[in-house]
Amino acid sequence: MKIADIDINNYPDSEKIYVEGSLFPEIRVGMRQVIQHPTVTIHDGKRIERPNDPVAIYDTSGPYTDPGYRHDINAGLPRTREKWVAERGDTVELDALTSEYGRMREADASLDAIRFPVRHRPRVAAEGKNVTQMHYARKGIITPEMEYVAIRENLDNAKRGIKSHITPEFVRDEVAAGRAVIAANINHPEAEPMIIGRGFSVKINTNIGNSALSSGIEEEVAKAVWSCYWGGDTLMDLSTGDNIHETREWIVRNCPVPVGTVPIYQALEKVGGKVAELTWEIYRDTLVEQCEQGVDYFTIHAGVSREHAQLIKERLTGCVSRGGSIMTEWCVIHNTDNFLYTHFDEICEILSRYDVAISLGDGMRPGSTHDANDRSQFLELDILGELALRAWKHDVQVMIEGPGHVPMHKIQENMEREISSCHEAPFYTLGPLTTDIAPGYDHITSAIGAANIAALGTAMLCYVTPKEHLSLPNLNDVREGVITYKIAAHAADLAKRLPGAETRDYALSLARYEFRWKDQFALSLDPEKARAYYLESRRNAPDSDDRFCTMCGPNFCAMRISQDISDRCNR
Amino acid sequence: MKIADIDINNYPDSEKIYVEGSLFPEIRVGMRQVIQHPTVTIHDGKRIERPNDPVAIYDTSGPYTDPGYRHDINAGLPRTREKWVAERGDTVELDALTSEYGRMREADASLDAIRFPVRHRPRVAAEGKNVTQMHYARKGIITPEMEYVAIRENLDNAKRGIKSHITPEFVRDEVAAGRAVIAANINHPEAEPMIIGRGFSVKINTNIGNSALSSGIEEEVAKAVWSCYWGGDTLMDLSTGDNIHETREWIVRNCPVPVGTVPIYQALEKVGGKVAELTWEIYRDTLVEQCEQGVDYFTIHAGVSREHAQLIKERLTGCVSRGGSIMTEWCVIHNTDNFLYTHFDEICEILSRYDVAISLGDGMRPGSTHDANDRSQFLELDILGELALRAWKHDVQVMIEGPGHVPMHKIQENMEREISSCHEAPFYTLGPLTTDIAPGYDHITSAIGAANIAALGTAMLCYVTPKEHLSLPNLNDVREGVITYKIAAHAADLAKRLPGAETRDYALSLARYEFRWKDQFALSLDPEKARAYYLESRRNAPDSDDRFCTMCGPNFCAMRISQDISDRCNR
Repeated sequence: MKIADIDINNYPDSEKIYVEGSLFPEIRVGMRQVIQHPTVTIHDGKRIERPNDPVAIYDTSGPYTDPGYRHDINAGLPRTREKWVAERGDTVELDALTSEYGRMREADASLDAIRFPVRHRPRVAAEGKNVTQMHYARKGIITPEMEYVAIRENLDNAKRGIKSHITPEFVRDEVAAGRAVIAANINHPEAEPMIIGRGFSVKINTNIGNSALSSGIEEEVAKAVWSCYWGGDTLMDLSTGDNIHETREWIVRNCPVPVGTVPIYQALEKVGGKVAELTWEIYRDTLVEQCEQGVDYFTIHAGVSREHAQLIKERLTGCVSRGGSIMTEWCVIHNTDNFLYTHFDEICEILSRYDVAISLGDGMRPGSTHDANDRSQFLELDILGELALRAWKHDVQVMIEGPGHVPMHKIQENMEREISSCHEAPFYTLGPLTTDIAPGYDHITSAIGAANIAALGTAMLCYVTPKEHLSLPNLNDVREGVITYKIAAHAADLAKRLPGAETRDYALSLARYEFRWKDQFALSLDPEKARAYYLESRRNAPDSDDRFCTMCGPNFCAMRISQDISDRCNR
Repeated sequence: MKIADIDINNYPDSEKIYVEGSLFPEIRVGMRQVIQHPTVTIHDGKRIERPNDPVAIYDTSGPYTDPGYRHDINAGLPRTREKWVAERGDTVELDALTSEYGRMREADASLDAIRFPVRHRPRVAAEGKNVTQMHYARKGIITPEMEYVAIRENLDNAKRGIKSHITPEFVRDEVAAGRAVIAANINHPEAEPMIIGRGFSVKINTNIGNSALSSGIEEEVAKAVWSCYWGGDTLMDLSTGDNIHETREWIVRNCPVPVGTVPIYQALEKVGGKVAELTWEIYRDTLVEQCEQGVDYFTIHAGVSREHAQLIKERLTGCVSRGGSIMTEWCVIHNTDNFLYTHFDEICEILSRYDVAISLGDGMRPGSTHDANDRSQFLELDILGELALRAWKHDVQVMIEGPGHVPMHKIQENMEREISSCHEAPFYTLGPLTTDIAPGYDHITSAIGAANIAALGTAMLCYVTPKEHLSLPNLNDVREGVITYKIAAHAADLAKRLPGAETRDYALSLARYEFRWKDQFALSLDPEKARAYYLESRRNAPDSDDRFCTMCGPNFCAMRISQDISDRCNR
């Protein structure tokens, strides 16, 4: 599979498997399965092979890594969920786009060259219907999406005899209670369902998107697919440059994971970057435009208030959220309340007709460790909690965005306050960075905070790349950011004692102990890099299953000596 | 300054300053001071400059970054502490080496080509004297080393009005109580004193050393200096290949930080790698050889016992400590107790005559998250506690080595058990890695664990590079490992609320908010990389102090908008 600069294939020593549903037999949950080599021992001159079980791994790469699948970037991914949505019988297909702006772009022939070639008719709830997963869950309905995520979370736990609390019923109840979110716009049927919640594995989000200064459509699609290949669970398109509408269409149609956006960015572009000219009407049209394209969740900075303009003066680094600063400035200019707050119920009504989830933006997230846990931040968090309740009245799914920059001793308070102020809505944090002094390495400063806050209950982590604060990430930075956040998320899953989380660690460590190098690489988060580092120092013996590595050399291998000790003791 | 492949100069926008002692006016503590640019604002068309204070930074680079200093690798560093040691009047200079092996190497003319050119006479305690910092501390004496580290830890706290508990008296009392270690062999007067203890800033150790498969002398010296340049506080030479003795001499003479070794490695080389042939006599001679070269601390795996051979069978990954596996095998072969344990008092007697500190090796550190906190590990930890008390009877300074691989929820138990079992001796851990599944990124998996365990009280962190488990680190890996561990250590200092720890974060964040890019870079842990990333995306405007960055572009800069809001509110 080749898109622009990336070239992705199936993972090494792995096969794509599909697990079928039992409530919904048409469900096929894709997973990656690592095929291990046997353990070979020699006893009395006889070679004995002991097979090692395959290991199922959570797979965010979608059909791209299915060897039987041929992708056409101009056609987009298969629209698997289309049938599920249609069969519910509570939606209608529209002949034309609802959004005025969307229609204008569609009519503009000068955009034909960059337009996604296939036109899908947008779908919307039938009159008087609410089509959110939360709505179904609260009615006691288990949807195919719910069974899908239950299977997906459990991997091969059942096969291994590992008991898990995660059943389709549990999924339904968590969604109904607002403790978990399945972000699945009815207009993004290409995405594989996934769940974000404290009772599930920790997820990671990646940000891509061009700013005015760089990057084109093909490059952004490549970044999207690349991010899924390495393990990104959701993707935010934060583009602010030209042709946002068209770029987004390409990304959504080719993206196997939920896509999020920050609609205020596009709304601001529509008024030429003039904050004063932002209006509810323009914003509203932008929401509908994106709902009908298939965006799965929106970051909405409705918790920013007029008071914040005064409160941020107490800060070292003011307001560092783009959306937050825009809305604060708007409030100050017009000397009135945030229109995202005053029109919040209307927003929810719109979103309930497409099942777009809200990610309540933390416009007041601290931009330095100095500003962590301050009045600005916690005032907003309380407002976000109030808004979560309002969204839930419309059965609209909600997450709460969190910091930012927080020193380690202040992390726990963030999580506890979020749970109490926001009524257990899933927390979705950016890091947090645990120190400010390492630009160029903020994937690491923030992975420390991310692992800690996720172990305490944060449901999704927004990745940070090495370029944070300095520049836009390239493909390599995306990979580095994703792997770093997979580490943080998995470390948290182990700490949370998520059922089956230790399976992969166990298998990899056993492979390491038994010098099954290929299995060790295949089970790694980044098999390619692990293998390359290993080979770097042994150009003469590639792929040989040597019983030592270069770190210690042949005479000093503790693992080999350990095995000799065991042999000796067993004699 | 150029050694082999590295080229180090003073840090950007920084000067080397020296702070003098008050108890000992001849003391000059080197620090790096970042000179910041003024903040420039325009009011009513008038340019107003507000100066920004310089920021002092803990500096491990020694004289190398003093622009007035010219280094000669063949002469070694200035021997500053020689005078302090001599003036105490409790040592003698020897005409010949005490170690048989050392004398043999000295007499071997075939080694002349690789021998360090200057021969210093070794120093040892006068008959009946004990020359350890702990010995002086317990007598109530404040040594120059103690005042030195007190000044060093405080940086510019006094100038800023930041109160600190760290005084020369506090240093003395912590050393006397065994809660802190000043590793300062009387034969390594080139090293700048530093302190390792829970009440002080968290330190990091770097490992270098050739294995049988790679690396030469010049490369190892380069790695040593390189590691100090980036911020390594101590350095372990883990060489196991040829010419260990000569390589070590080059490293020690050119190294401005304390050097540690694992003497059993060299002892094993002396018996051709045959564990069965290791003897106390060979090990003893190796200790003396290295004491007289100037090694500042020894890792000694005296806590490994015969019972461990059985206990490690319960494990997934056996014993992963080289020294630990060697000693376990030795115990099994000879069916007797570990000679490092049975001769422990003799070891202490030797070390007390040179002031070499003991780092009690964790031969049973877990090599996988599965094996964390198991019987093998905690049995050894209890023995290490007993040995710490025995060392302290000889006034020998002690640290306790710790894991390894530990999932986050098991980290706290490690720290608590260490404090109680080992009577508050400083803990010195390798990471720990919080998951096993990311070879190639184990600097990150372990930085998460390292930051956590250090925030709980670990005094020194042994770095892990991206090559861990796969290969030997090159210069770039050393740099990556050091910076990653500086992040973990600093995040912990912030969490511990170490006096003044937040100064650098505050200054960097303010520089960021005010778009003083050069100051932001200079205050970074890796100024070069931060600057390079920044410039990558703005080739046309290098060094310009633009009021935005590429991440968000000019129209979406939250920090700029924040400042506009402030301006607007102040009107």
